[in-house]
Amino acid sequence: MEADRRIVDAALRRLLPRPGAVPPTVRRAMAYSLFPGGKRLRPVLALEACRVVGGRLRDVLPAAAAIEMIHTYSLVHDDLPALDNDDLRRGRAASHRMFGEAMAILAGDALLTHAFEVLASTGAAHRDAPRRVRAIAALARAAGVGGMIAGQVLDLEAEGRPSSLPSIERIHRGKTGALIRAALEVGGLLGGGRAREVRALCRYGDGVGLAFQIIDDVLDLEGSAEGLGKSIGKDARDRKATFPALLGVEASKRRAERAARAAVVALRPFGTRAARLADLARFIVERAH
Amino acid sequence: MEADRRIVDAALRRLLPRPGAVPPTVRRAMAYSLFPGGKRLRPVLALEACRVVGGRLRDVLPAAAAIEMIHTYSLVHDDLPALDNDDLRRGRAASHRMFGEAMAILAGDALLTHAFEVLASTGAAHRDAPRRVRAIAALARAAGVGGMIAGQVLDLEAEGRPSSLPSIERIHRGKTGALIRAALEVGGLLGGGRAREVRALCRYGDGVGLAFQIIDDVLDLEGSAEGLGKSIGKDARDRKATFPALLGVEASKRRAERAARAAVVALRPFGTRAARLADLARFIVERAH
Repeated sequence: MEADRRIVDAALRRLLPRPGAVPPTVRRAMAYSLFPGGKRLRPVLALEACRVVGGRLRDVLPAAAAIEMIHTYSLVHDDLPALDNDDLRRGRAASHRMFGEAMAILAGDALLTHAFEVLASTGAAHRDAPRRVRAIAALARAAGVGGMIAGQVLDLEAEGRPSSLPSIERIHRGKTGALIRAALEVGGLLGGGRAREVRALCRYGDGVGLAFQIIDDVLDLEGSAEGLGKSIGKDARDRKATFPALLGVEASKRRAERAARAAVVALRPFGTRAARLADLARFIVERAH
Repeated sequence: MEADRRIVDAALRRLLPRPGAVPPTVRRAMAYSLFPGGKRLRPVLALEACRVVGGRLRDVLPAAAAIEMIHTYSLVHDDLPALDNDDLRRGRAASHRMFGEAMAILAGDALLTHAFEVLASTGAAHRDAPRRVRAIAALARAAGVGGMIAGQVLDLEAEGRPSSLPSIERIHRGKTGALIRAALEVGGLLGGGRAREVRALCRYGDGVGLAFQIIDDVLDLEGSAEGLGKSIGKDARDRKATFPALLGVEASKRRAERAARAAVVALRPFGTRAARLADLARFIVERAH
């Protein structure tokens, strides 16, 4: 995973807009939020999904970088004063604290737009174009009003209200699950996977995404969310609906373990080729122990 | 043009996310900013570009709607307090005045993302996929840090500083020109145009985009920008670099006429088929008389 993280980081650097071609400030703000990143979970999953279906790294690498750009844009906008109002991100000043609110809004817009430019611009050999169009559609759906933005809106509207398990699951499926699932789907698609292989990867993604978010909530509650997770500001955290707040820590961990097991089961058709994806699912749950 | 405007409006309504599939508030905020729109200049240009190269309406209509969604997202974010701080848009409350700042940020994000979903999801027959990928790349480039966002950043950074003609042209090329040019390029591409036809349409788009923005500045200065143009708030207007502020009104009009003539010249390869595009270029300049 560490080697893949470095491969993703190098691709992200290479695929940023060329200096000189764009205003320096906005490029600096884009890079500031991209580096140093976290564990690069989503692009690493896309790389591994591509390998599992027998694809080559270069088929999926730009898309993997684009997925991380979309994830990063969502963090930049979520941190804004009008949303989570979070001054810190991964222990550093949030983008709007560093560059001002206007530039943070524009840098977020830029990361989102650049992701689609990267997806549509790199390595689009004619015979790959239909799969590329499907990958773009899958990512736009995951990032859009039926996915990440839906999660954010529902989260916003749930603040201060009593929450239920279905509503928390829906929020999490949007905010975190949709893009994780799409990372697997895109990796499978661009790696040349068959329809049923891509479906199996999506099911794995659903399980892993849910497990990841539950454990993130647990770690956040226990005050040790640094690293893998998104650390949200204390004010925001106090208002947010989480699994442990509703179910308690132990029941939440059991729910995450069940989701991770379902993810591993979905990998059966791939046999031993999927050993690393299975390890990743287990690792996500175990970091809470 | 009025008939095409209605065709575009119907496509926009049809291509909004389905109610029930997404949180109602964000869908309402998306629709609020899309309807009623202005003259729908960009999508109408895309439709006409498609016709000029012999394409069918259905080949380009979803992309034309997507272009208007991208244009609308940029207006929603530009109006935010941290940017132009504009309370009014086309004579109504700006999105953030109507729905709050958080929802306006998310509705803008949603419009941008949904545009790419529409571009990648509709009518992607396999044989069209390579052109579709190129169209997505062209639009992402136009909307990105080398286009619209560059214009916005440069505009932000130019506030209060003495401006020069090259810097104003660069700002306008980004903020307005890039997406107008892309509308022509995408219309030509998806209509099945040859490379040199698409290049001619791009040259036309460059001329028309510049003429449009200069005349918009002139009308704005003369206080009659309602309708076609983007009416920016008084505070913002006083700080912004414009053509008439630098060249005076008469010289600005002459500059716009020259740009519109260059646009018409670029249409020569199409002969009489391009009569409506030529009329459009003239109409854009004449509305200042």
